[in-house]
Amino acid sequence: MNNSKRHILTLLVDNEPGVLSRVSGLFSGRGFNIESLCVAPTMDAAVSRITVTTKANPPLIEQIEKQINKLINVIKVRDLSVEQAVNREMALIRVKASSKTRAEVLRIVDIFRCKVVDVGAEQYTIEVTGDQGKISALLRLLKPIGIKEIARTGTVALYRDPK
Amino acid sequence: MNNSKRHILTLLVDNEPGVLSRVSGLFSGRGFNIESLCVAPTMDAAVSRITVTTKANPPLIEQIEKQINKLINVIKVRDLSVEQAVNREMALIRVKASSKTRAEVLRIVDIFRCKVVDVGAEQYTIEVTGDQGKISALLRLLKPIGIKEIARTGTVALYRDPK
Repeated sequence: MNNSKRHILTLLVDNEPGVLSRVSGLFSGRGFNIESLCVAPTMDAAVSRITVTTKANPPLIEQIEKQINKLINVIKVRDLSVEQAVNREMALIRVKASSKTRAEVLRIVDIFRCKVVDVGAEQYTIEVTGDQGKISALLRLLKPIGIKEIARTGTVALYRDPK
Repeated sequence: MNNSKRHILTLLVDNEPGVLSRVSGLFSGRGFNIESLCVAPTMDAAVSRITVTTKANPPLIEQIEKQINKLINVIKVRDLSVEQAVNREMALIRVKASSKTRAEVLRIVDIFRCKVVDVGAEQYTIEVTGDQGKISALLRLLKPIGIKEIARTGTVALYRDPK
């Protein structure tokens, strides 16, 4: 897997039991790696959107797209890494905030435009949104202070209309 | 399904192919409905976190939890709707923004503390984070203006430490 790039696939699917299991089974059955995946309803209650990020080289990603397209209940697949797209993820991070580290945590929160969404005796819970690079950079800075727990959503994306 | 409530289940699982497919297959195979699901890596590259929201009554949700616990590669399951938890989701919303509606869209963005993350000739892409209620309220307000596309992450959650 040289030459493999991160791809963001966005799928519109019928909101029916079994669709997610078929899509994720297609990946695991063929040994394709899923880095992150989100599924949630759209404005049309009958349709859900699945966003999958995966690392693959170009021939492999084409093969994945073709096979997803063949699945029943899949309405549309789009590779948003080859188009102009807005892509974001969110993370909740619980970090140690003792009297010694609190000021430093708040400085980082400020620089990264995060929000403190919960305050405990010795910890803050921080909400951050951004692309993968921003979230990785934040985690690198918070790691030496002490990350207790983290919940990431994985990437979601929308294509940009041509200007 | 009277008496059914929204539950947020958070699972720590081995980051191995097939785990997501087994978890989602368990839901669909038994006719349990998945409202949203996220899976993404944690700080430990060998462990991923899956967050599932589902509607079920108390005996059913217990049964689901027990069956998930029996799956291989599942390290831990927790029902965060019965504990004190911080829960959030993110959405990207592409909304019509013509010369007539732009000011109204920006007013709503301001009130809901959203961010405009992309601007097109006749549209804005908005990023919003919050609980399900906040995002639903925002969508209700934007709907008459014209929502072109939406990508929601689904809920992620972390428990609050007892104060």
